[in-house]
This record gives sequence, structure tokens and C-alpha cells, in this order.
Amino acid sequence: MTDILNDESLDRLFRAARTHNVWRDEPVGDVLLQAIYDLAKMAPTSANCQPMRLLFVRSPDAKARLKPHLSDGNVDKTMAAPVTVIVGYDLKFYDELPRLFPHTDARAWFAGNDAKILETAFRNGSLQGAYLMIAARALGLDVGAMSGFDTAGVDAEFFAGTSIKSNFLCNLGYGDPGKLHERAPRPDFDDFCQIL
Amino acid sequence: MTDILNDESLDRLFRAARTHNVWRDEPVGDVLLQAIYDLAKMAPTSANCQPMRLLFVRSPDAKARLKPHLSDGNVDKTMAAPVTVIVGYDLKFYDELPRLFPHTDARAWFAGNDAKILETAFRNGSLQGAYLMIAARALGLDVGAMSGFDTAGVDAEFFAGTSIKSNFLCNLGYGDPGKLHERAPRPDFDDFCQIL
Repeated sequence: MTDILNDESLDRLFRAARTHNVWRDEPVGDVLLQAIYDLAKMAPTSANCQPMRLLFVRSPDAKARLKPHLSDGNVDKTMAAPVTVIVGYDLKFYDELPRLFPHTDARAWFAGNDAKILETAFRNGSLQGAYLMIAARALGLDVGAMSGFDTAGVDAEFFAGTSIKSNFLCNLGYGDPGKLHERAPRPDFDDFCQIL
Repeated sequence: MTDILNDESLDRLFRAARTHNVWRDEPVGDVLLQAIYDLAKMAPTSANCQPMRLLFVRSPDAKARLKPHLSDGNVDKTMAAPVTVIVGYDLKFYDELPRLFPHTDARAWFAGNDAKILETAFRNGSLQGAYLMIAARALGLDVGAMSGFDTAGVDAEFFAGTSIKSNFLCNLGYGDPGKLHERAPRPDFDDFCQIL
């Protein structure tokens, strides 16, 4: 195993990677979507709780169901993206713990404690959303995540009758690097970090 | 730029990487901590809001301040880890938006809206916590994250008089691969994902 990633990989994941809003007309197939999840699911969640639930919105019909719930500024790019992932989290994630964390009764840590359930689902579902974006970049895709949508509308349209809530959306595909804006400034280490 | 990461890199980040609880006696220096943050801060947050705040707890004095707030099962490994990061998020993150997202008045999207502030800080602070763990692995470190601690106690000890709240803890260092338990099972794609 290499000790650290090479420069090209660090560029692809972090340093040169950008949020894309303009997509090339190249499809993203089932196998690639599965490969992204199969990487992301390996990364850590507390008690391996894996609360993230994914809907890969790709067909014209599914895109049309999503469209009315998008903020105005997110409509065109999302309709044009090869795939839009609805990144959700399941508030009943703890029912899976006997299978996912079998060596102790972790389900009992959560059942009946709604505040802890929501906090754990939202924290770990967001961690997993980040793993998803990094995994997509690792496999050559560009990503463009969004919080600008009507979560209640998306939940009613896609998650009715379930315990799943939408967290954020993420377009996936191959972006057009010629259409990028200037990058927003990043903080210095000393702005937000301290070594004690 | 390579199109996808090589197998060794995918192993290091996702497939072979494990949560570690036993640490080799190898220090982690300032430059490496800064390099981790300098990768993590490049990854996406909504409106570049960058709410994550980090305390790298490394000195014996700082470790002693953290110790009483840890769950029993997390004390020994955390005291032995070269560094323990307190991953926090700042509820006043929006005061930085004029600098971090300068082309529009994004501060006005948040000021006065406490529910949106908390949701945005927690979601994006958690995304950034995941970027941090992946960046640490990319630079050769092992990680071991934990939710098992008294958040109110940590906040009172380390963040008193600020708008920063603790999210989770993460040990950093070089783990002992001989001391790993069996890996917890992972879900299949079809368990938690659907292509529409």
C-alpha cells in the first residue's frame, strides 16, 4: 500500500476538484453508481449505523418529479445533469443495527430516544454524503451538491410512507471545466484551527 | 490528471482503511495537521460556509482537560492517541460569509434564522468532518472517530464564551493493524439505494 496519495489523486479529490454546474452530455451507468456506493459504504459511521439512503434520479420521468421542488437557480443544471442523487437519511436506521453491528445490542441505544436518533442519523448521514462525493471524484466523476430545494416537497414525492428524510441533493456527471467561475476563497489553518 | 484513483489509493481511503483503537507510538507533527486541513477545506460546503472548527488536542495538559468528558470505553485509546481532534462547528459561521462567499450577501440568508443556522452548521460541519478523515487517510494517517463523550462538558471546557459546539471526536495517528477486530458487515447497494 502506498503511504500517501500521489499529487494527481490529491488534486482530483481536493485541490483541483470543483463544484460543477455545467454538464457534458455523457451518461453515467448503473455499474459506476454502484461502485461509488460500494466505496462510500466502507468509510466510518458510528456503530456502523449507515443511515444514508440514496435515490439516483436519472430517468426523464424521475427528473420531472424532482423539478418542481428545486430552487429556481438549481433547476436548469439539475435537469441537465446525467444523475441527481437525493441523499437521504433513515430515522429508523437503528432497526438495521442487529445486522450491521451484530456483536452487541446497539439498537437499544437508540429506540425511543428521538433526539439521539435524529442527531445520529443527520450527523452520520451527512458524513456518508461527503464520502459519496469523494468516492464519486475518486472514480472520475464531478459533483455539484445543493441544499436549495423544498425538503418537504421532495420527501412527500419520493419518501412518502417511509422514515427517510432528504438531506441534500448532488448532481453527478462530467463537468465542463471551461464553464467554472472563480473559486471562492478558503480560510487559513490559523483562522479556524488550533493545536493545543 | 489521472481519470480515476489507482487501487492502492482506493484501498487506503476506503476499502482497506479501518477505524483504529490501538496506536503506535509515533508522533504527528504540526505540518501534517495543517496539510490535512489544507486538503479538507478545499472540498465543498454550501455557499462555501466552512463551519468546521478544529481543536487538535495533543499536549498532555490538553489531553487531561479532555479526559473527564470521555465515555469510559473511549478513555484509554484517546489518551494513547498521538492527537485527538475535537471537530466542532460554529453557529456564527455566517459572519464569515462576506469573506468566504464575497459575490453576494449570503450572510443575510442566515442571520436571525436559528433553525437554518443550526441545520446548515451541523450538516456542513459534518461533511467537513468526513473530508477531514479522508484527507488524514490520504496523507497516510489512520483515524478513529467517536461520538461517545459529554458534549456539554467538552463545550464548557474548550469552547466557553464562543458560538462553537462540539460535533464529534477523532483520534489521529498510526494504528496497529495487528490489533483490529473483524470488520462490521456492509450493506449491499440494493439494500439502501435505488436508481430511478
